[in-house]
Amino acid sequence: MIENNKWEIVSCSLEPSELIVDETLFHTANGYIGVRGNFEEGYPSKYDTIRGTYINGFYDLSEVKHGEKLYGFIESKQKIINITDVQGIELFVAGDKFSLFDGEVLDYKRTLDMRTGVTKRHVVWQSPKGHILEIDIVRMASFVKPELFLIDYTIKSINYDGEIVFVSTHIGEVSNYFNPHDPRVAGEFEKHLSVTEIRREEHVDLIHSETNASGLKVTSAVKHIVSAQCQIESTSDTRSLISKIKFNIKAGNIEKLTKYCIFTDSIRYSDCAQSALCAMHEVTRMTLSKLYQSQEDYLNAFWEMADVKVEGDEKLQQGIHFSVYQLLQSVGKDKYSNIAAKGLSGEGYEGHYFWDTEIYMLPFFLLTHPKIAEDLLSYRYEKLDAARKNARMLGHQKGALYPWRTISGSECSAYFASGSAQYHINADIAYMFVQHYLVTKNIDFVVSKSAEVLFETARLWMDTGHYTGGSFRIDAVTGPDEYTCLVNNNYYTNVMAKYNLKWAVKCYELVKVHGDLESLARRIGLSEEEVKNWGEAYQNMYLPYDEELDLNPQDDTFLSKAVWDFPSTPEENYPLLLHYHPLYIYRYQVCKQADTVLAHFLLEDEEELSTIQNSFNYYEKITTHDSSLSTCIFSIMAAKLGDVHKAYDYFIQTTRLDLDNTHHNTKDGIHTANMGGTYMGMVYGFGGLRIKETGIYFNPTIPEPWEHYTFKVCYQDRVIKVHVNKRECVCELIEGEAIEINVRNNAYVLKDEIIIV
Amino acid sequence: MIENNKWEIVSCSLEPSELIVDETLFHTANGYIGVRGNFEEGYPSKYDTIRGTYINGFYDLSEVKHGEKLYGFIESKQKIINITDVQGIELFVAGDKFSLFDGEVLDYKRTLDMRTGVTKRHVVWQSPKGHILEIDIVRMASFVKPELFLIDYTIKSINYDGEIVFVSTHIGEVSNYFNPHDPRVAGEFEKHLSVTEIRREEHVDLIHSETNASGLKVTSAVKHIVSAQCQIESTSDTRSLISKIKFNIKAGNIEKLTKYCIFTDSIRYSDCAQSALCAMHEVTRMTLSKLYQSQEDYLNAFWEMADVKVEGDEKLQQGIHFSVYQLLQSVGKDKYSNIAAKGLSGEGYEGHYFWDTEIYMLPFFLLTHPKIAEDLLSYRYEKLDAARKNARMLGHQKGALYPWRTISGSECSAYFASGSAQYHINADIAYMFVQHYLVTKNIDFVVSKSAEVLFETARLWMDTGHYTGGSFRIDAVTGPDEYTCLVNNNYYTNVMAKYNLKWAVKCYELVKVHGDLESLARRIGLSEEEVKNWGEAYQNMYLPYDEELDLNPQDDTFLSKAVWDFPSTPEENYPLLLHYHPLYIYRYQVCKQADTVLAHFLLEDEEELSTIQNSFNYYEKITTHDSSLSTCIFSIMAAKLGDVHKAYDYFIQTTRLDLDNTHHNTKDGIHTANMGGTYMGMVYGFGGLRIKETGIYFNPTIPEPWEHYTFKVCYQDRVIKVHVNKRECVCELIEGEAIEINVRNNAYVLKDEIIIV
Repeated sequence: MIENNKWEIVSCSLEPSELIVDETLFHTANGYIGVRGNFEEGYPSKYDTIRGTYINGFYDLSEVKHGEKLYGFIESKQKIINITDVQGIELFVAGDKFSLFDGEVLDYKRTLDMRTGVTKRHVVWQSPKGHILEIDIVRMASFVKPELFLIDYTIKSINYDGEIVFVSTHIGEVSNYFNPHDPRVAGEFEKHLSVTEIRREEHVDLIHSETNASGLKVTSAVKHIVSAQCQIESTSDTRSLISKIKFNIKAGNIEKLTKYCIFTDSIRYSDCAQSALCAMHEVTRMTLSKLYQSQEDYLNAFWEMADVKVEGDEKLQQGIHFSVYQLLQSVGKDKYSNIAAKGLSGEGYEGHYFWDTEIYMLPFFLLTHPKIAEDLLSYRYEKLDAARKNARMLGHQKGALYPWRTISGSECSAYFASGSAQYHINADIAYMFVQHYLVTKNIDFVVSKSAEVLFETARLWMDTGHYTGGSFRIDAVTGPDEYTCLVNNNYYTNVMAKYNLKWAVKCYELVKVHGDLESLARRIGLSEEEVKNWGEAYQNMYLPYDEELDLNPQDDTFLSKAVWDFPSTPEENYPLLLHYHPLYIYRYQVCKQADTVLAHFLLEDEEELSTIQNSFNYYEKITTHDSSLSTCIFSIMAAKLGDVHKAYDYFIQTTRLDLDNTHHNTKDGIHTANMGGTYMGMVYGFGGLRIKETGIYFNPTIPEPWEHYTFKVCYQDRVIKVHVNKRECVCELIEGEAIEINVRNNAYVLKDEIIIV
Repeated sequence: MIENNKWEIVSCSLEPSELIVDETLFHTANGYIGVRGNFEEGYPSKYDTIRGTYINGFYDLSEVKHGEKLYGFIESKQKIINITDVQGIELFVAGDKFSLFDGEVLDYKRTLDMRTGVTKRHVVWQSPKGHILEIDIVRMASFVKPELFLIDYTIKSINYDGEIVFVSTHIGEVSNYFNPHDPRVAGEFEKHLSVTEIRREEHVDLIHSETNASGLKVTSAVKHIVSAQCQIESTSDTRSLISKIKFNIKAGNIEKLTKYCIFTDSIRYSDCAQSALCAMHEVTRMTLSKLYQSQEDYLNAFWEMADVKVEGDEKLQQGIHFSVYQLLQSVGKDKYSNIAAKGLSGEGYEGHYFWDTEIYMLPFFLLTHPKIAEDLLSYRYEKLDAARKNARMLGHQKGALYPWRTISGSECSAYFASGSAQYHINADIAYMFVQHYLVTKNIDFVVSKSAEVLFETARLWMDTGHYTGGSFRIDAVTGPDEYTCLVNNNYYTNVMAKYNLKWAVKCYELVKVHGDLESLARRIGLSEEEVKNWGEAYQNMYLPYDEELDLNPQDDTFLSKAVWDFPSTPEENYPLLLHYHPLYIYRYQVCKQADTVLAHFLLEDEEELSTIQNSFNYYEKITTHDSSLSTCIFSIMAAKLGDVHKAYDYFIQTTRLDLDNTHHNTKDGIHTANMGGTYMGMVYGFGGLRIKETGIYFNPTIPEPWEHYTFKVCYQDRVIKVHVNKRECVCELIEGEAIEINVRNNAYVLKDEIIIV
């Protein structure tokens, strides 16, 4: 049960099925490390749990087996791995081990506080022997010092005089969660991390481990600080360190154990152990309250820009805050990492980065924290060579093909029909490089990074497509909708490729003027002739269109297939992918998610409004939204098409997906793309925001239940605040010089404030 | 080097790369057991070898792993397993171990004699110490007593007086061949067979083994008979039996060791050990010459009907004999087994049965030994329940879907796009049930078996297809050409499904008249309404046709794809499947094998001749023949279309594929379908045979290099002999009553002989 407070998420449940979901919802992450919300003292052994700690981009290689291995099928993949477990703290009161499943729980509540950036557990517990303690456990993964995760464990004795024992563990023997029956998590037990050294130095416990196949190293450092006069007994074996901390407490007194945990890895640090020790000294020199304060300060600044305020619906406001907060918890803020499909909250999709980043999550950062957006794009730039290699593997002589799922840059999809075949990821990435340019006008970034990415992705389209009857066509790819695979001329792919090619040409001109075109062209062997071909290809790009229905077919033969028999499909057979063979699904007109509808959102000027409307109506009827990337897009498009009521319905489904566990798999991690979708639903949907070459556009609407809503966006060195209520839309220039904006299709020059009634 | 003798295959090579191919070419099989042509004494240890003995249909289960496991993906598959090794016989002469790679080989030749049904090895060997022996080793797998495999080892001393020692082994510790880099054989070491008992009883050595997962049992029994007065010393451990046989020889004398080997398995025998002992007593009571004679008698009768005589091309005649002989060696003659893609000659394709049986191999048996054809079809009838289960797994509510590859009836394809998606296998099987009826007019078989198969396969088409714009369409299937997958309205599939549906309706009428329709309909829940729907569906079946080109497109979008860049594809990049990612291949117009062209052979009356001709011309340009199932069909169709020269060229490629190892993988086993294709190339191609509802048709042509050719076919209780020379075609009625036949589109009543000039 999640209580309704717009800045807090609260749970009081001890139901096993909810506890494993709470592990996700109450995970603690800062974009670098993520720790699932497991109980320090554990659950009863029969409870299902996914106990885990992860570092963004820290992976091992795992062998990939194929029943039938064809040429080019991947032989190994990266996967995020569970690292050293620092979560364990057992508490003994007069010999009774504290557990929420033993003795008597007089009070219990756990909270995620999104303003202070901590999770808290509050318990009043009576031991079997009748001793009562008030226990408060606070966890924080610092946004300011990303290596730091801490557990701040406070006990107050209500009626107990005597010895308290803490047993705090630091365990190197860890493995990943697996479930052979769910294609969305790993299917087999594999051990990925081996302890190479354990030592104690200056009261800091260090465990140094290495991955088995990828050759990466990680150090975890733990230091305990205890408020009371205590006795610490430390033991260790080859794979773990245990600290037994004993002290006496008196009724009415409060004592505190703070467990500082530092993680460093060899991707970012040349000497992990040394860096960990330094970081430990740095953080333990600070007071705890100062650490908390720095977290709150960081978040204040974050929310100042990021907050989307809605008045009139607390539950929804809570969902929006949760979504935005999870985006922050999930995003890697260096060029080594990105945003995993599950953030750092679980092992679903094996910690891989998908197109989700660009199309669903990057817009939030681009509009509120453009520096983070730049890091995310820089990550893609860094992986360009790997994408070139991937293209060669897929048979292409030129260009780069970004892998469908990856951590370190090479393809990790083991089922190419709905993996590597999704060539649109190339255009998705290109699209966001362009959006970045349109939002920031950062020409240096274009010259140094975006241009090369756009050129290499454009080249891939040329090598993939061909002309037939004068039009440029792209065959044998899969669009975003994974319920239809390996098709010719997927509308989404073609229109996005068109944009990719068009902007590759534009970038060529930009670099010609602002950069060193000659040296770039020489380095990648680019000729003027190629650029000319890009121009021709985009101008002649074939976009499927059905005249009779005035809509865009999803692909060349989509409309000739039978429509899925929805009336006879029982509710429990959704999501279809878990109940039908893919071959059966492919045979029907049924969409897992927005595909053509998504294209109409991203590139709305490519089609007439009537075509967009008809397409929306058509696809809506056959879309199951089995993917969490879908309802947000339908919400945005319903808003665009003037059906605010429908937009609101889709938005509700989007916003509380994880909080209400509506997809029944939140235990494996949050649906991070959906979090981005929530933001987009507000800003692009109800706010009607579009960023185009011709400028910035707002077209606000407001759902009936709301009083008003407000958001801010960064645009070309300005900060624009948009406030919408039932009567008017107020645009306010918070920072920067006057600029032209478009509201409800009228152009205004925004100096201070414009009120549009 | 294969010498040219039309009834013998000869090799004198000791090159390692040829030896492993010879293991296949000189394997000894009888449809029940197959023993690869390994040397009794082995090769040097560094030589690559696939040492194996197989029983048709005897399999273990092997776990199938998927990098990404979706709903309905198979979890285990059957695979043929290497069973107890009885091949070992070492020979010691004055302490020197006989080996073709030691001492001096004064003469060496191995022969497959296709009239006597044995393989022979003739060696004159001088030991390192200078002793010369003439060695003759004959192997036979009896067609008359299928459990029997024997090695008849004769030595003649040229200049040696002294002790001879044979060490004969019987080894239970065996495993399958594997190669992680070739998708066409197993990729991993797995142990499948465990010895459960070893014993000696009445001079017979017995090893009893069980498979690890499928629970099948096999017994191998070995008995040695030695011509000389000898001393036999037997030793055994838990997994093998060794017999050391010592005797003295004098220069000029001949001595003989005969090793009788009996195999029985729990699929066919309730008590394997007892049955093996009985069989051993039975065969060892007979003289060796009688055993040889029975083999020769069997083959005389076989060739009497099966031989296709060609005068004017010895090499080709040899290839034809080899093909027909391999079909006999490969075919299972009981309802428990069928014909594996590699027969019993190797482990390629894991001993699985494919559509190859019906479309490529069954015609030979149907026309020459219809009882065997009936066994093959009965096997499919027996697997109908498994096919129903398979259909459910693929999402179908009704009907049966035969698996793409199988031994015991369930799907063993681990890559569904070019496996389970080949729904045409249903129609292929149905087609041969119909051909069987047309050839035999066996109405009892229709009533008892064919009807149910046709009904259940027809039902599957109804559940798969749908009406759009009044035509019945079949989406998301793969045709025979595996270089294009998951398409809508594959011409081959649709036209074959049409025939399937049409004959399901006809069978319904036949059963109504000749059988107990009511009880069959009740048993499978069949309604009159369904049958009406079949009729409508076949009448409205959509068959892709391109008006402009006057040809049948392979599928809905095939013609809109780019044509593969053949000029830029280096020779060494064929077969394409070993050098390009499937996704890349799927993007182009390129065919692995005959697809539409095959449909035009099987159902030539569906299209105008011009359409067939244009299609042939079109597909010929884009077909790589990377599959061994292709050139034979192009040969047949070239003959039909009047280009005898081209037909001959394709036929040559077909006929000597394995003898010349043109696909470079004969080591993994013979290409059994291609063997059937050779026969079809003669009889359907040059002979122009077609069996239709309206009768039997011949349309003979003769390639320029030939003098004449002759073949016989069984048809409706007659035997018709066809003799074609450069001037005339002579049809002779060998058995049965007068019958109408059609030759070059003229109808004749065949009483004794007709000569058409």
